[in-house]
Amino acid sequence: MDYSREKLKWNGWGWLAQDFDLHGREEGLWAFLQSQLGIDDLPNTPAVAMEDMPLPENRLSRSQIAELRGLLTEDRVCVDRYERLFHAFGKSYHDLIRLRRGDLDEVPDGVVYPESSDELAALTQFATTHHLALIPYGGGSSVVGGIEARAGGRAGVLTVDLTRMNRVLDIDEESLLATAEAGIYGPQLEEHLQKHGYTLGHYPQSFQFSTLGGWIAARGAGQQSNRYGSAAKFFAGATVVTPCGTLHSITTPNSAAGPDLRHLIAGSEGVFGFITEATVRLHPLPTARDYRGFLFSEFKAGADVIRQIMQEHVDVAMLRLSDADETWFLSQFKSIGKPASWASKATSAALDLVGVGEKPCVLLVGLEGTTTSTSASRVAIARIAMGAGGIPIGAKPGKGWYGTRFDMPYLRDALLERGVGVDTLETSTTWSNVQHLHQVVRKQIATSIRRHTRVGNGEPIVMAHISHSYTDGASLYFTFIFPMSLQAPVEQWRAIKREVSDAILENGGTISHHHGVGTDHRDWMTGEKGELGIAMLKAVRDSVDPHGLMNPGKLLP
Amino acid sequence: MDYSREKLKWNGWGWLAQDFDLHGREEGLWAFLQSQLGIDDLPNTPAVAMEDMPLPENRLSRSQIAELRGLLTEDRVCVDRYERLFHAFGKSYHDLIRLRRGDLDEVPDGVVYPESSDELAALTQFATTHHLALIPYGGGSSVVGGIEARAGGRAGVLTVDLTRMNRVLDIDEESLLATAEAGIYGPQLEEHLQKHGYTLGHYPQSFQFSTLGGWIAARGAGQQSNRYGSAAKFFAGATVVTPCGTLHSITTPNSAAGPDLRHLIAGSEGVFGFITEATVRLHPLPTARDYRGFLFSEFKAGADVIRQIMQEHVDVAMLRLSDADETWFLSQFKSIGKPASWASKATSAALDLVGVGEKPCVLLVGLEGTTTSTSASRVAIARIAMGAGGIPIGAKPGKGWYGTRFDMPYLRDALLERGVGVDTLETSTTWSNVQHLHQVVRKQIATSIRRHTRVGNGEPIVMAHISHSYTDGASLYFTFIFPMSLQAPVEQWRAIKREVSDAILENGGTISHHHGVGTDHRDWMTGEKGELGIAMLKAVRDSVDPHGLMNPGKLLP
Repeated sequence: MDYSREKLKWNGWGWLAQDFDLHGREEGLWAFLQSQLGIDDLPNTPAVAMEDMPLPENRLSRSQIAELRGLLTEDRVCVDRYERLFHAFGKSYHDLIRLRRGDLDEVPDGVVYPESSDELAALTQFATTHHLALIPYGGGSSVVGGIEARAGGRAGVLTVDLTRMNRVLDIDEESLLATAEAGIYGPQLEEHLQKHGYTLGHYPQSFQFSTLGGWIAARGAGQQSNRYGSAAKFFAGATVVTPCGTLHSITTPNSAAGPDLRHLIAGSEGVFGFITEATVRLHPLPTARDYRGFLFSEFKAGADVIRQIMQEHVDVAMLRLSDADETWFLSQFKSIGKPASWASKATSAALDLVGVGEKPCVLLVGLEGTTTSTSASRVAIARIAMGAGGIPIGAKPGKGWYGTRFDMPYLRDALLERGVGVDTLETSTTWSNVQHLHQVVRKQIATSIRRHTRVGNGEPIVMAHISHSYTDGASLYFTFIFPMSLQAPVEQWRAIKREVSDAILENGGTISHHHGVGTDHRDWMTGEKGELGIAMLKAVRDSVDPHGLMNPGKLLP
Repeated sequence: MDYSREKLKWNGWGWLAQDFDLHGREEGLWAFLQSQLGIDDLPNTPAVAMEDMPLPENRLSRSQIAELRGLLTEDRVCVDRYERLFHAFGKSYHDLIRLRRGDLDEVPDGVVYPESSDELAALTQFATTHHLALIPYGGGSSVVGGIEARAGGRAGVLTVDLTRMNRVLDIDEESLLATAEAGIYGPQLEEHLQKHGYTLGHYPQSFQFSTLGGWIAARGAGQQSNRYGSAAKFFAGATVVTPCGTLHSITTPNSAAGPDLRHLIAGSEGVFGFITEATVRLHPLPTARDYRGFLFSEFKAGADVIRQIMQEHVDVAMLRLSDADETWFLSQFKSIGKPASWASKATSAALDLVGVGEKPCVLLVGLEGTTTSTSASRVAIARIAMGAGGIPIGAKPGKGWYGTRFDMPYLRDALLERGVGVDTLETSTTWSNVQHLHQVVRKQIATSIRRHTRVGNGEPIVMAHISHSYTDGASLYFTFIFPMSLQAPVEQWRAIKREVSDAILENGGTISHHHGVGTDHRDWMTGEKGELGIAMLKAVRDSVDPHGLMNPGKLLP
């Protein structure tokens, strides 16, 4: 894959050459959204072109740039418009609406592409001397403002793009461990591992545009984390270059030698230093894969099934339960502009017959492993799901989901062109609180959107699914679609985000299950970790970065 | 169970009323050890009686004691000889040889028994005002000097015995979580949980004499950790009272809200504060239990079987592979003073026939769960073990081990009475390094014992087993028996410990897999964590305990 910057969108998701393919169903989609959101007409809201973007003056002097080029090479120190704008923001809704409007007050003054830990150490020296902020940049897919180019009182900002550090250094086949440079993209890593018969199995929605280091720095979780583990779990060790020197964590399994520094590195979001190499736990490449669906009449029934599957330790790769609104929305979305097929009509009739009702909840079950292991799991899951009233709907919905699992972020760009906002947020909680948190948060999202939206009747689409699960609880992933406030979309978004985040914390959820903190969740960190917890993390930061050069303004309030 | 202090040994292991039962085989044991260790006669080395123990002067003033009694109650502030000596040390070899010889330079000046977090907060205030060291004391079973009463420059030492904080506060049956006060002993916790149909499943060898808070503080691992997880894994949240306030960690499963503070608490060994309450992940009480053995002609073959079982994710509670020396020693030890039975003779002959050889390695496999799950695992394990040349030897060795699994520490006291030293140490490493580390460490132990022992021909007994295992590696647990140097046993032990610990770190092992750091492993922490890692941990400590009152001299160099 060619990750040259000019192949990638600078103010939208993914490949420049790729858009969400509506297969000519655009008009149907717009009509559907208009009717759902209660607006008469969707406006055209094109993005500002790159050449028209305002570009803040460069705070780096010529001699500083020359010095940087001496440390790296001429071509790996960029100060041109494209590189500076490309690296200004991540890919959150908040980021994209600002990029599309040309609403920028800060961009990196320089973008550097180091190729080794030694070069990174030299860069931290350079930044210390010149009091510059350093922004570690992997795939740039943060959706929480994790890579915003904020100087925060420093003399300028250098964004450090790590994607040239992308070699796989070692595969220890006996220990099922691989060590790679942290700037490697998901597909690059998997291609290398799979050639040897292994997989990391970490496939977040951002898989194609995120890096190993970013996954660990943000404590991410892939869609199949039930089997392959979230980043904090598959992460076995790292090298971290900080302004005060280099940290090499152990890679031995479990140790009682004091607190586990690996869990300080996982989730550090670049504020302690650059993750330059990481060791991760592998799995043999699965030889069997089985994704299939069940329908439940109630979200609670489906959640109970997931809980039971987890608590019985059934070997499962993914359990994804959409609530009734999401199930309905996705089925509507899929059928837009298509005549209802004989099969789908028959399915509806059948559902009615078996009593699942008009707004069922779909559970997608993903199994990966060997034919033997997936067969055993399939039997166990059928027993649990059907025992709880689940209706098996076969492999088609699973296949459909699997084939398009990386595509949804492209749709957001299409919606933004027509003044339709879409954002997601996620949390996790214990099983005994999942139903409560689901209800509270979806209501709060709807209430906040209505309160802060002056377009049409401001009616939102709010939906959720359980995306990751554990013996003791699960994550809830919310998606909401709303009429964008064209005058003040940032303020609209902020007001909604603030109220919903408050509701999450007040009701026993974590501020993020797998997106991270960045700038967007920073204000809720004290609520989550406590004053003392924040003091502990700040003390760690100060011990390795006394001048606060690393990714200022992220993670810590 | 009655945990009154007078029911427990103050200078040895466990219940006062219990000794290792040799069933009249003492003479055989002594003869066996004499011959193995190459010494003519085992000396009698009785312990100094409590009334003859030197007791350092109490550094607490009368008014301080009165003030403490005002904070708690009269009877929960102890300054008598028994309480002070009882709480002076843990239960390591190093501790016991000093206690038995009356070789004490420091003991706690007072022992307090708080009953609430509020009382603990008051105690930290008191200690801050009077500049006293606070030693968190759970079951007192540390084998790494984790609870030594060291003032380290402070004006005195208060040992804080937490065992009156022993209530189970909540069982969340839906989330399989329990919250309990941290001073609860293993049997108290399990009794409560099992009444409700659950288990934590954490059964370290110290189970009867260790507490929930201690397990987490030391990052311990139970013998069945393959199924139930080590402390760092089953630990879902805690309240920690520090000199700067109280920290409440979240209990939600997985979170991407920055570094996981729970992994700073796990392994903190009391240097950040007192763990007062902890939430842990439960399992339904197993309805089936199956422990059985296999023999292998080589340690490597057995280790490969464990690795394959782990990497195939077979549901197993315990995998314990003794090396040839340990297998031989245990079989000799069991048969001391017994005529070789017809059955055992037949077994030897059979082993010879199938080619396992004279010094096989025994693998004990423990399965827990339901009849269905243990049956499935039994089939999978038989396939893997027998495919690798393992000879099944049935359930008897497993049953034997299970029935006596908490008894071995009592034997140490008997050996100490006859001038025979016995100590253990443990580490973990990746699979690709397990064989190398096993060889290097056992050789180093033997070499160091020979070098530092002037008794008899100084020939040691050195043996090891794999005690805990993971997909990426395993722990190695070493036991060594040697003629105690009667003139300078502490120096002898220190010299051996130093050389072996160096060898562990130099050869890619962690300084501890589940015993912890305490004072004994502190000097190797910089080697393991790096200068920067230690700086990070010290920064955390300073942020919550700026005067260094909490457990001084432990964990951090």
